[in-house]
Order: sequence, then structure tokens, then C-alpha cells
Amino acid sequence: MQTSKRLLRHSAYLPGEQPKIQDSVIKLNTNENPYPPSPTVTDALLSEIPRLNLYPSPPSVALREEIAQLHGLESDQVIIGNGSDDILNLCVRTYSDDELKIGMLDPSYSLYEVLAGVQGSDLIRIGFTDDQFSIDPEKIATCEANLFFLTSPHAPSGRLYSRDQLSQLARKFPGLLVIDEAYADFASENAVSLLKESDNVLITRTFSKSYSLAGLRVGYGLGPASVISQLDKVREVYNLDRLAQAGALAALRDRKYFQECLEKVMEQRNMVASQFDDFGWRQIASSANFIFVQPKSSGEGTGPEVALSLFRHLSEHNILVRYFPKHPQTSSFLRISIGKPSEMSILMKSIKLWRQKKQQG
Amino acid sequence: MQTSKRLLRHSAYLPGEQPKIQDSVIKLNTNENPYPPSPTVTDALLSEIPRLNLYPSPPSVALREEIAQLHGLESDQVIIGNGSDDILNLCVRTYSDDELKIGMLDPSYSLYEVLAGVQGSDLIRIGFTDDQFSIDPEKIATCEANLFFLTSPHAPSGRLYSRDQLSQLARKFPGLLVIDEAYADFASENAVSLLKESDNVLITRTFSKSYSLAGLRVGYGLGPASVISQLDKVREVYNLDRLAQAGALAALRDRKYFQECLEKVMEQRNMVASQFDDFGWRQIASSANFIFVQPKSSGEGTGPEVALSLFRHLSEHNILVRYFPKHPQTSSFLRISIGKPSEMSILMKSIKLWRQKKQQG
Repeated sequence: MQTSKRLLRHSAYLPGEQPKIQDSVIKLNTNENPYPPSPTVTDALLSEIPRLNLYPSPPSVALREEIAQLHGLESDQVIIGNGSDDILNLCVRTYSDDELKIGMLDPSYSLYEVLAGVQGSDLIRIGFTDDQFSIDPEKIATCEANLFFLTSPHAPSGRLYSRDQLSQLARKFPGLLVIDEAYADFASENAVSLLKESDNVLITRTFSKSYSLAGLRVGYGLGPASVISQLDKVREVYNLDRLAQAGALAALRDRKYFQECLEKVMEQRNMVASQFDDFGWRQIASSANFIFVQPKSSGEGTGPEVALSLFRHLSEHNILVRYFPKHPQTSSFLRISIGKPSEMSILMKSIKLWRQKKQQG
Repeated sequence: MQTSKRLLRHSAYLPGEQPKIQDSVIKLNTNENPYPPSPTVTDALLSEIPRLNLYPSPPSVALREEIAQLHGLESDQVIIGNGSDDILNLCVRTYSDDELKIGMLDPSYSLYEVLAGVQGSDLIRIGFTDDQFSIDPEKIATCEANLFFLTSPHAPSGRLYSRDQLSQLARKFPGLLVIDEAYADFASENAVSLLKESDNVLITRTFSKSYSLAGLRVGYGLGPASVISQLDKVREVYNLDRLAQAGALAALRDRKYFQECLEKVMEQRNMVASQFDDFGWRQIASSANFIFVQPKSSGEGTGPEVALSLFRHLSEHNILVRYFPKHPQTSSFLRISIGKPSEMSILMKSIKLWRQKKQQG
């Protein structure tokens, strides 16, 4: 048998490490929520078990309707995915091929490149205009991609792009602008209101971060009914299992728990950011559930060696964070997910220990 | 934005009807298991809930190992999918494109055509040699497909192809032969032992039928490590959620419950088959959890109108079965999933009522 030539440039996505024994490790490397899902999820799951012998609702009807209501949209403007990765993949399969190109911010979520690789689509990388991860809408709008993935809040920097800037971009860009809002619940604004004025914007969201359901694989897309119906034709018919549909619905409805978890995470984010400020470490103002920070040692200053040194030190102390060595704009930084207060306290103690060692060394 | 030209010939998969109020309907249209999953599934799910905030194991490690053990294989010969549909899709994306063609038995599972449509791959349809759904291995082996989907037990007929016939085919066929064994647990033999002798056979299985987990979306593929590793590169990294992994693992381990459900289903299948024999209705000997039968009325004999008449009669009595009107080899048949004894008893009563009406009419 032969392998498709479309896969020639493809290499698989490399996820953040999943430690085998999770209890002894402080896991701040894949932007998970440190809190368990809403207690209402348990009852919702239990009531679904006797029906597990039956196929799920193909379009995840109840969840679609609830999400539409949450965002003030019609249910034909919503599509549910097996994680938002599923929606991103549907976009790639529907709006790109060997002629229709994909654009992305570079660096941003590396999955875009993986999905382009499987589809055999050309990828256009658009860099930032400065070290604050600022974008040039004109450059994106004229890049000749048919499909552009813009992550806002951006990962791994945490930088938020304003609604006005995105609106300006959407007006100029002739293709489909996918605004990947995986982290938007931790931000002060989002792009949902753009859907009232644009017919070429699709917004993706996930239950993995703000709803504490990374283990359940649920995400969604919001967009014009015409785009949603195209994506729906390509969607695997039973893409979401019964438990995922029921669990996400319960989590979505418990607004109080959702809000409490958000606030706890944002409080820790601000606390850690202020400590890094005290150290004089450069960071990008974060609108997400992680902090992107440039470690500095009193002896060596900043740079890839310094970032790697702290990464290794934390790893030796069973604290996992994420290091992206391949890009000059990320290689002297670490991305640290926000955990519980007790975890952040251990993290900060360990960082202080590293700083002391560096001062003595 | 433009839509990919690859989708030009694609139309979406049409699933069997999912009634809204399931309690008042006897659902024999999508080959679900009438029994709930093993009671051990509940505990497995409950113990996973506190960890739902964390991403699942990307390769579904524990489930992979257990399945390997069940079939006497190594774990690098196993891949887990979000339903076996996920595995079929990975095959299409890896081993077909606008040059590498896909072959399938015609008629068989209509999803193969849908997946080919999304990939923009040419489809070669191989018909049967007689009305018993017999195949000609020579014709398949020389059809110039790079990837061939062979359903055994075949759907919608229920016909089983022998290990020897499949072995002969695998030796001659130069591409990847995917043997879709969704229904194999209801059959007297299967093709797993072919994996010891062939390097171009992939077998797909599902938890949807024999394990009563259609609502959980879990399937798997068994094949050479080289093929599995190719598919793994294309697989969505977190394709299976934590609950699906844990639930399937628990169901797999409860062999006693699994066996009991199988036996109950097969007993009903034989009972219904024998009643159809008594009616003098033609049927294909079923190795699956459904019966493919050609209804006959004393006045009109057999044919599409007769099949449609019984389909409508059952539907009016809240009994859903499946009718495939588009193909001459299926249009005078109905496919009836095997339910609980009480459901099959109501079904048979309703069929008898139809026969009486037809005699009087």
C-alpha cells in the first residue's frame, strides 16, 4: 500500500507531557484548570449511563441550543466538536487544500500546522511586529490565505487582541477568519459581537480550560449559519458521545461554579504576575490561565540557557511547566499554567530557590 | 472564502433516525444493543470524574494494552478511535487521495463513501456475485484501489466471509485491506488470526454493538505496527475522552456480562429468523445483531413496495427498522436490529398483523 503524498510534510502534534503518577507532580504545563468540574456534572453523567447503549444525538442538539442562548445567537450558528481541535480540523478540511492556503500567527498553537500537514495545505506564517506580540492586520488581510487562524488571547503569550482590531481585520480579510478563543473566558473582552457584523468570522471555544473539562473533549464553534452548515457536512456524524454532551451541558448551566473557578484562577494569575514584576522579570500581560514570563538570573541575565535552567530546576522539583525552545520569540520564556494557591506557593518557593542558587553560582 | 474543491462530490452521512421520545418507541433501526452496559462501567466513570479537569491519555494507553491482550497482540498493533468511524477516517486520510483510490463492497456501510467524499478520493464499487452477497476475491484484488473496505459480517446483509476467503484476498490484494468487523462478536469466526500472516490487513472493531456502548463512541483498529504508527500520526491527539477510555476498559474487562448479552441477542436472532423461515420469507443467514429479511405478502409477493409497506406499518406502530430503498439488492428487504425478547415479541405481533391485513386486502 502507498501512503498519501498529502502527508509528506506532516509531523504529528506533540502534546505537553502527561505524567504517569499525577499526585506527586504539580502540573502547570498544559493549561488545565486546577479545579474539578462542577459537582452537577456527576448527576448528569449518572443519569446518562443507562442510555449508553444508544447512539448520541448527532448534532448534540441540547448543548447547541444552550450555547446559542448563552451567546445570544441562533442554534444554527453553533457547532459542537470533540474538543475545539475537532472544529479547527473541520475548518481545515472545508476551507483549505493544495490550492487554498492556511495562515497562522507564528508562533501560536502548533496544532494548526499539524492539521495543515495532514490536509496537504500550504501554510503561511505571519510574524509579530514587536516583542509584545502585536499584530499587523494589513499584513494578515493580504497574506492570500483562504483560512486564517488567529489565537486571541494568544498562546503562548497570553496577549489579547482588541475587538476593534479584529473587526478591522475581518473587514479587510477575504477568507474565513477563525478566532481561536480557547482562553477568552479569562479575558476582559472577546470577539463574539463581531458575529453580528461579519459573515467571515468563526469563533472557537473549549470546555477544556474555563469549565475544567479537558478530560471530556468538548469544544464549539460560533459563526454564520452558512459556515456552520458547511462544517456540519464534514463533521463525523456521532462526533460527541452521550457523556460529553451531558457533562458539558451540566457544567455550562452551573454559572456560579464557573464564575468562582474563573475568579480563583485570575486571582492567582495576578498574584504570580505581581511577584514576577517584583523580580523584574519581563512578562506579557496575560488574558489567559497562564503566564508567559522571561526568567532572569542575576548573573546571566535572560536567554534560552536561563529559561532552560529554570525549566530543568522546576522539573527536578516535580513541577512541570512548558518551554518552547524552537522559536526566537519564545525560547527565553516559560509558559506557566495557573494552578491552585497551594501549587503556586510551591512554584514560587522553588523559583526563589533557583534564584538563590543562581546568585551564589 | 472558498470551499475546498475536494468536497465537490461529498454529501453528508445520513444516520438512522434517533427518536426524540425514546421510551414510547421500539428502536430496531441502528443495530444498538438493547441492554445497558456492564454495571462495572458506572464505578469506572465515577472514579474518573475528579480528574476530568486533566487531559486524557493521548494514545488511550490502558485501553490499548487491554485490547492487545484480549486479542493476543502487542499494544503497538492496536489503535483506539472515537468510534470505529474514527479509525476508518484515519485510513482514508492516510491511504487515499486524488490519486490513491478507495474500494468498497456495493452496497455496504455508506460511511466509506462519505469519508471518500471529504477526502476527494475516487471510489471503486465492487458488486456481489449473487443474491447471497457472495464476493469474488479476484475482482477485489485487481480493482486498483490502494485501500479496500470489506465489511464482515457484511452490513446490511449479515453475511459472514470466511477467514480462508479473506486470507486468499489479502495475499492477492496489493493495497491495505480493511476488514470492518463491527459485528464480529456475533459471528462464529473472525479474521484476527490473519494478522499473524498478513502485513496489509487492518481489522476494525467497535464497542457500539456487542459492548452496549454506542453512546460512548469507542472503536479500535488491529493491524501491523507499521500501519498503526502511520494512523497514529494522523489521529487527533486527544481523540478519546477520559470517560470513554475508562468506560470501555471496564466494559471490556467484564467478560461474563459481555457474554451474557451476546447470548441473549443471538438467541433472539435465531428465534426471529426461525419465525421468518416459517413465513417463507427469504433472509441472509445473519452473523450480526440484525436480520436482513425480504418481506412477502400473500397477495403481492416481494418487492420494494412490499418492503416499504411493512416499513410504514411498523413505523405507524412505533417500531423503527431500517429500509435502504436506493440499491436493487436491498430495496425489497428490511434490516431489523435484534432487541429484547419483549420488543421482538411486539415486533412479531405487529408483523403478523400486517400479514393479516395484506391477506384481507
